[in-house]
Amino acid sequence: MAVGLGPLPVLHPVAGFELGIASAGIKRPGRKDVVVMRCAEGSSVAGVFTLNAFCAAPVILARQRVKGPVRYLLTNTGNANAGTGEPGLAAATRTCDALAKLVGVDASAVLPYSTGVIGEPLPVEKIEGALQAALDDLSENNWAEAAIGIMTTDTLPKGASRQFEHEGVTITVTGISKGAGMIRPNMATMLGYIATDAKVSREVLQNLLFDGANKSFNRITIDGDTSTNDCCMLIATGKAALPEITEASGPLFAALKQAVLEVCMEVAQAIVRDGEGATKFVTVEVNGGANHQECLDVGYTVAHSPLIKTALFASDPNWGRILAAVGRAGVPDLDVSKIDVFLGEVCIASGGARSATYTEEQGSAVMAREEITIRIELGRGACSETIWTTDLSHEYVKINAEYRT
Amino acid sequence: MAVGLGPLPVLHPVAGFELGIASAGIKRPGRKDVVVMRCAEGSSVAGVFTLNAFCAAPVILARQRVKGPVRYLLTNTGNANAGTGEPGLAAATRTCDALAKLVGVDASAVLPYSTGVIGEPLPVEKIEGALQAALDDLSENNWAEAAIGIMTTDTLPKGASRQFEHEGVTITVTGISKGAGMIRPNMATMLGYIATDAKVSREVLQNLLFDGANKSFNRITIDGDTSTNDCCMLIATGKAALPEITEASGPLFAALKQAVLEVCMEVAQAIVRDGEGATKFVTVEVNGGANHQECLDVGYTVAHSPLIKTALFASDPNWGRILAAVGRAGVPDLDVSKIDVFLGEVCIASGGARSATYTEEQGSAVMAREEITIRIELGRGACSETIWTTDLSHEYVKINAEYRT
Repeated sequence: MAVGLGPLPVLHPVAGFELGIASAGIKRPGRKDVVVMRCAEGSSVAGVFTLNAFCAAPVILARQRVKGPVRYLLTNTGNANAGTGEPGLAAATRTCDALAKLVGVDASAVLPYSTGVIGEPLPVEKIEGALQAALDDLSENNWAEAAIGIMTTDTLPKGASRQFEHEGVTITVTGISKGAGMIRPNMATMLGYIATDAKVSREVLQNLLFDGANKSFNRITIDGDTSTNDCCMLIATGKAALPEITEASGPLFAALKQAVLEVCMEVAQAIVRDGEGATKFVTVEVNGGANHQECLDVGYTVAHSPLIKTALFASDPNWGRILAAVGRAGVPDLDVSKIDVFLGEVCIASGGARSATYTEEQGSAVMAREEITIRIELGRGACSETIWTTDLSHEYVKINAEYRT
Repeated sequence: MAVGLGPLPVLHPVAGFELGIASAGIKRPGRKDVVVMRCAEGSSVAGVFTLNAFCAAPVILARQRVKGPVRYLLTNTGNANAGTGEPGLAAATRTCDALAKLVGVDASAVLPYSTGVIGEPLPVEKIEGALQAALDDLSENNWAEAAIGIMTTDTLPKGASRQFEHEGVTITVTGISKGAGMIRPNMATMLGYIATDAKVSREVLQNLLFDGANKSFNRITIDGDTSTNDCCMLIATGKAALPEITEASGPLFAALKQAVLEVCMEVAQAIVRDGEGATKFVTVEVNGGANHQECLDVGYTVAHSPLIKTALFASDPNWGRILAAVGRAGVPDLDVSKIDVFLGEVCIASGGARSATYTEEQGSAVMAREEITIRIELGRGACSETIWTTDLSHEYVKINAEYRT
């Protein structure tokens, strides 16, 4: 069902960043469900994590440990280790301890990531049993396999890669992500891992990730449900033969920032394209707001409205539902007579009513497309925000009604 | 599909309040789609209206006119006259003018109500053509027929009635409502009409309605979409042989307040029971909040979560999704270790994790019921709020994907 999401693009290896995949049989025997990532010594690592108060045990641990030196990222699917309380924290700690012992690093240099069913005890022994196989598999050329290894309800793996030249040296930025439901990231998506061989100080790297995630992962929504396990990591191995970036300025920083943003955007939008039951990829663009928050309020109200999402599924240009959603978004003193709404290039509503030039045929033609932009012009100021989302289909209900059965 | 909603109960006539039903053929030929209600001269009338900025033309007019003397309420289904701009306002005015002329009252004493498709021009001539038939049909005994006459996607008519004695005089409160989708009232539901033969000053009546609607219509949600057309009216004809209630105190006021609240509650909950595609009637009870707003934030986050709603549809006791929703509700400094979550009488989660005593069988037994209470104890204070909602089924998607086709 994925909308406009093809096979993985070429994912360039990043010097100093290796990935190893193995099968622990957590949910299904034989499924690749454990991924170990190794960062070269001296790598800088940044992370953004869910703001859900019920964050999962691995999030608690990873959030603490990202402040110190990081060498290994340990990911499992099939079990989120969320809503598991103190035993869950102990379980996450144990899997990291086991990996640390195998490779001879301090346990605090191993960060855990889990995704899958909430509230089941983590099968620690199964994960421990798969660690050596994952380590044996470590390679800089394993991005595509890792993108498959972190999937849950995803129907396709998600990845993106960019390269640019700086003073004759090629810099690579490569990333992968997973996620298809329980998607309204608030700081980061379900799971995302992006690595570069540039050398970047931790502070600058964290700013790069905040900025990139904010414009990409934090602007997508499938069902409005912020996960307990959202994490996005950015690793800079420093293997490229260039000086360290220690300030947020200059041409190298600017080029890297652009590459990181493009990779974030591509893998974040891939999550929406693969949204549970998605048949449409929808861009909600809100312009002319007095401030960014009201643009986001309008955008998310439209993106979360079950009535708009079912109309999108039905390819029904039901512009009345869009107006109704804009009207209930809580924007103070909203003057409906100044609002224009566009479906693609077609003005469907103007001044609080159907546009005089609009015909149902025009709206239907846009709605029949797989990729649709809903553009709302508030006419109140100069701020804009863009959000990406999906429709709401029978398949979404089916997937989520049957998830645990 | 209506959950626990049977045939209409006995709807006692209210002296001085008559209802007449006719067919204008707005959406389908022969369908009863116009209802005229006549209030005896000297009636007090109160109203609450949608807070959607894109409110419909009839809402604009009714909101203005409720301040003056009110004699007639004119309702049509099949067309919401919303998103219709200035021409919509003119159309609403014209239908009221036509009725006023037929009965010889000032046009400002006629209030319009419309429900149905948004954004289509109101078929004024069709409505005008049905007015005389509706007037000829006026009777105090027509509550049940009017409850049918105001239906749109409702599968069953909705009404409630209470009587009580005061100093040997019987007082009646009877009400009807309609609505099944685009339901998250914000001051009132789609359409509700409640009448009593008590004599009540307009100020006290408005307070009675605010209070009643706030605890009933404003605590139900089906899909989170606040309609452009929500209205709820409370009419006091003063035909009962008792002195006027001019203060919000005393035993007569208290008895009337209770009866109005009970009628509001029954017809509001009937809307949820008849929610589009509903297979469950769900009560979300949030206790132990530090203030009412945080209780409402948690309650609505749970009630609107597509993941919880699909789990309810599947009768899946997926308590992890409930914890995840509580965690993202935006309550400041939420201490998850103090939170308990109950499904019916079963404690499913405690201290941020699955309850030690919980078994999947217990949860499944509660989830198999048609009426389910999710109770969340925040452990932060003494405030409580209760919200009523439905599950999210295949049928909801079907109804809303096919509404205009």
